[in-house]
Formats: sequence, C-alpha cells, structure tokens
Amino acid sequence: MLISYDNLYKFTFAIFKSIGCNNEDATTATKTLLAADVRGIDSHGVARLSGYVRLWEAKRVNANPQIKIVHETPSTAVVDGDSGLGLVVAPFAMRVAIDKANHAGTGWVSVRNSNHFGIAGYHAMMALQHDMIGMAMTNASALVAPTFSVERMLGTNPIAVAIPANHQPPFIADFATTTAANGKLEILQRKNEDAPFGWVQDKNGHPSTNANELKQGGALLPLGSDREHGSHKGYALGSIVDIFSAVLSGASYGPWAPPFPAYVPVPENMPGKGLGHFFGAMRVDAFRPADEFKQHMDNWITRFRNARPAEGYEKVLIPGDPEREMEAIRMKEGIPVIDSVVDELKKIAEKFGVAF
Amino acid sequence: MLISYDNLYKFTFAIFKSIGCNNEDATTATKTLLAADVRGIDSHGVARLSGYVRLWEAKRVNANPQIKIVHETPSTAVVDGDSGLGLVVAPFAMRVAIDKANHAGTGWVSVRNSNHFGIAGYHAMMALQHDMIGMAMTNASALVAPTFSVERMLGTNPIAVAIPANHQPPFIADFATTTAANGKLEILQRKNEDAPFGWVQDKNGHPSTNANELKQGGALLPLGSDREHGSHKGYALGSIVDIFSAVLSGASYGPWAPPFPAYVPVPENMPGKGLGHFFGAMRVDAFRPADEFKQHMDNWITRFRNARPAEGYEKVLIPGDPEREMEAIRMKEGIPVIDSVVDELKKIAEKFGVAF
Repeated sequence: MLISYDNLYKFTFAIFKSIGCNNEDATTATKTLLAADVRGIDSHGVARLSGYVRLWEAKRVNANPQIKIVHETPSTAVVDGDSGLGLVVAPFAMRVAIDKANHAGTGWVSVRNSNHFGIAGYHAMMALQHDMIGMAMTNASALVAPTFSVERMLGTNPIAVAIPANHQPPFIADFATTTAANGKLEILQRKNEDAPFGWVQDKNGHPSTNANELKQGGALLPLGSDREHGSHKGYALGSIVDIFSAVLSGASYGPWAPPFPAYVPVPENMPGKGLGHFFGAMRVDAFRPADEFKQHMDNWITRFRNARPAEGYEKVLIPGDPEREMEAIRMKEGIPVIDSVVDELKKIAEKFGVAF
Repeated sequence: MLISYDNLYKFTFAIFKSIGCNNEDATTATKTLLAADVRGIDSHGVARLSGYVRLWEAKRVNANPQIKIVHETPSTAVVDGDSGLGLVVAPFAMRVAIDKANHAGTGWVSVRNSNHFGIAGYHAMMALQHDMIGMAMTNASALVAPTFSVERMLGTNPIAVAIPANHQPPFIADFATTTAANGKLEILQRKNEDAPFGWVQDKNGHPSTNANELKQGGALLPLGSDREHGSHKGYALGSIVDIFSAVLSGASYGPWAPPFPAYVPVPENMPGKGLGHFFGAMRVDAFRPADEFKQHMDNWITRFRNARPAEGYEKVLIPGDPEREMEAIRMKEGIPVIDSVVDELKKIAEKFGVAF
C-alpha cells in the first residue's frame, strides 16, 4: 500500500499522542521515525511503530520523560533519557552536542536510559544546517558474535557521519557495523530466500546461508564476515560504538543491552540503565573557514563521483546518494508499506480509536 | 636476524640524527617508528626507515620542521607539520589534543603538511596515561578502489581507538579500513602465495587472488570486500578518515595524497599540503568518574573475554591482545628483522657512517 508522507505523519503523530506524548515530543518522535521510511530504510520506520507501542505497554518506555543533562564540561555532556522514546531523547541530546559545539568548537554527548532511536543518520544530519559535521551511534540488543565466538555479544551498533558540502549534497554515511543489517535478513525471510555466505553463522559458529539462523541460536557477523576478511575490524567497530554509547554514559552494554521486542525479558543484572547513544558535532570553522571547507568537499565529492566505474557499473556513489534519491521519489509518490505492517497499523489504530 | 630493542633504538636514533633531526625529534621519531616493530606490525616499523631517508633525500621530508598550531578553539586545533616526519608531527598534535581535553573535556586536532606517522595505535595510546580515550587516523596514498570503481581513490586509511581500563589491559583497536592491509599482501608476495578472494581486484574490477595485482593496475578492496558483504561501509569509513584528516586540515586528499615511495612523483594539482591526520582525546571524567568508567571497562573486557568460543577456537580476543602479547615477547627476545630489511639498514648505515 502506498501512503503519502502527510497521511503517515498524521497517523503516527496521533498514535504517539495516544500513548501520552505531549505535542512537542509526538512531533519529534514522528519526524524521527518517518525519516527512516522516507529514506528507504523500511525496517526502522513505521514498521516499528507497534513495537514502540508494545514497549510502552510493557512500561519500558516512558511517554513523558524528564530528559536531563546529568554531567557536563565545555565540550561534553551525559544525558539521562528517563526511559523516554529514543526518537525523542536522541534529538534532545544532539541539540546539546550542537550547543556545545557552538561554544567550544565541538560537542560530544553520551546518553543513558534511552530506547531505540530510529535511524542514526537522522540525528547526525541535524548538524548540517549549522555548518557542522554530525555523528550519531547507538548500541542495541545483542545479535552479533565477536570473531571466534558463537555468543551474541553486540548489537548491529550503527555509525552515522554527516558532512556538509556547498553545491553538492552532503556526504551522509549511516551503516550497521555488521556485514548485513538485520532488516536485510528479514526481507530474505519473507521471500523464503537464502542469505549469501558471510552474513550469519549457525549456533556452532559455522558459515550458513539460512536466513532464519538467528531464530535457531545463530548470530549476525561483524563487518568483514570472517577473520580472513577482517571481521575483527567490524567487531572492534561495534565494540567502540557500545563503549562510547553505554560504558561512557552508564547505560547497559554488550549482551546486557535491553531488547526491542517487548516479549523478550530484560537481561538480569544489567550493569547500567537502558540503551546508550553517542552524538558528536564539530563546527567546521573550528578547523578552517566553512566556505573553504565546503568548496573542498564539493571537489572531493565531484572527484569521487567521477572515479572510473568497474565493468558493468554505471557510476560510483557517494554515501547518502541512494537515500536522497529514495527521499525524492517517496515524498512525491508516497511510501510503500507492506501488508503485514498495514495489518499491525490497523490493529493499533483500532486499539486507540485513531483513523487509519 | 633478531635485534634487541635497545640496539635497534640506538641505530634508528643515529639515523634520524644523521638526517638532521635534533635530539628531541630523533627520540620521538625513533620511539614512534619502533612501536610498530615491538607490537608486531613489521610493515610499519624499521622496514620503512630507508623509505623515510629517501623522502628526506628527495626533500619531501623536512628534518627541522617548525610545527605550529595555525587555528584553534577551546576543543579543536589545526596543526601545520611544516613537511616534518609524521613520526614527530603526530605526537606533537596528539599532545595538543590531550591539552585541549584537559581544559575543555575533549580535544580534536586535524593536521596538514605532514608525512607518514607510523602506526596509528601508538598515538591513540598516548591518551591512556591521562585517563583519556585516544583516537588517531591518517590518510595515505591511494591504493583502494571505492565500491563499483576500478580507480584507486583512497589510502588504507587506518583508525585507532585506545580506551583505558582498570585491572584489565586497555582496549586498543588499530586497523586499516581495507579488508587486508597492504603489508599482508607484501608477505604473500615474498612467499609467492595467492591472496584470498576479497582482498584485491584486478584492473577491470574483477575479483582476483593475485598478490601482485596492485603492480598491474589493480586495487585493494575496502573492508567488506564487495557490495554484498558491505564494501560500501569500508569505503565510507576510509572516506571519513580522508575527510577528517585532510579536508578539515587543508592537506591533500583522496587520489592526491602524496605517495610514500620517494621515486613516485607527487600528484599534480594537489588541493592541499602533504598528508593529513586526525587526533582525538576525550577525558573519561568529562562523562563519568574515571574509576567508575574503568571498573565497567574491566567488566566489559572480562565478559567479552569469556564469550563462548566457536568450535576450533580457544578464546575470544579483545582488540589489542595480540599486539600486547607480541610486545612482551619481543622486548624480551628481540625483534626479528628479515634479510632484505637488514640489507637496506646496512646500506643506510654505510651511507651515514653509522655502526650497524
């Protein structure tokens, strides 16, 4: 079903209002969540709305959080999200990072006691209009086995970096630190197709092409897939995201990160509070004049766009190109929502007496 | 040949003195360079000493640089390396980052007009004794093709992150943003062995196992190897390193990064000065009390070390474990130097009248 952005916005806003968000938070949560659908990351958008509602029903999400700075220096802060929606806590924390950068050149904010925050790229992109480089990362419930292990110890722990340019669109990288995001496995499961080798391993740590392997005790693999192809680097990257997001802030880290599905019990003996995020903002002119930097970014982007393509490929892409192209299409033609998600949305519409 | 650290130190120091470094710079350069040998990254240590000498002979390295801060804010600086040895410029810049962090909570320094800086991990580790998290990255001459391209546009652009713990040794990640570092290919070339698929492509962009492919117009592949296994993520990581190191500072970026071998001409129309680096230091107690953080790092490290190993593997490693074990062995037993490197060292010993 194709749904226009405006209609999806009205519906999503109404649901966030229904669980008790105030107008401002419902607006922020809706914009953050739908940024995923608009940019083509369907796994992280409205498909998760009913999941957020279930977390609220399970009292794991606080719809009226008192989000607070609990510690700060000129260039840093720790934010406590008070169990709020990550969709609301994250933009708050990113604004703190931007404020810090305005005064000190850069701002770095580690967040505890939060929940899933949608797509990392959305938060990183908040820096762009201020002529800043933006960064965002988050830990997540454990699905990924470190190199040489069969135990799920890390989430897909994404990293996003947004860098402004002048006439060229910005450089926007936003990626899970695994070989493939879990959303890609879900697509294969629905189509009943195999995964390529290198995405998952079975419960004994053997390579597997079974897209359902995670349901049978298997694990996602860190970027690099196996030791010979650098999986220890993906493992290190995911670990860095976990430590910056959760150990620095006092959130729950590693295998203790709280799960997104409300039916999965919260781990015992959690060493911190909730999920953790980490945000950064660097004022470009804290390094060199912004115009100069952005002109060189135009030159960088243009040069890479014109790199000689390999046989069978048309052109080299700049990080952010596919999502921007998707956004142009979907804002015009509407957002495709698959049947199973439509069914879920209808159910929560009914539950709260909201028109769908 | 096994050479003790002390003997290798004396020799290397004498060579840096011979090209005109003052005592302080020769000390810094020697410590930085040999940190690679000690930690087992043989490609980046004394094996490169004659390469640095050749760069000096070609007047591409200034042995008496006036290294300067050219721009700064409370948490940032840009450093101009005055064409000095990266082995000297980088520790200077990392000290600036640490000073900034002492005052503002974090410090971020982008460097232009530098040269190769040895191993990234050495610089990141400088932060540890100050209870800070250290970061270091650098661009390098182009050997890596972006996803969908056959053109070499990026260096192996490493990232290092050092994180202090309490009783446990620190977490130290230090890795090229490619599937395999160039040094690993060089080892295969010497042994006349093939590379695994996924490390290099041929000049047309096809997968190859030829360890000599780079000499025939091929390229190294970004971490992830191919699009299906996330090479666009490795490409994004390498690009971020390039932009933070060189576009922020005013160094030469992308395919214009100056080459290490002195016989390779410098690219025409360079958009900046020399190689670029980027350093970060974050005071742990700018986020939470240092003791508390380090106790949680101990818990993090212990939990990951005890993750269930896969069949056929003994244990899960923490980033930095192999290098630390190597350091303990080599400081005791000496540093193995292969014959071809011994020959080169003998040649420069003779050139400068230094005992080997």
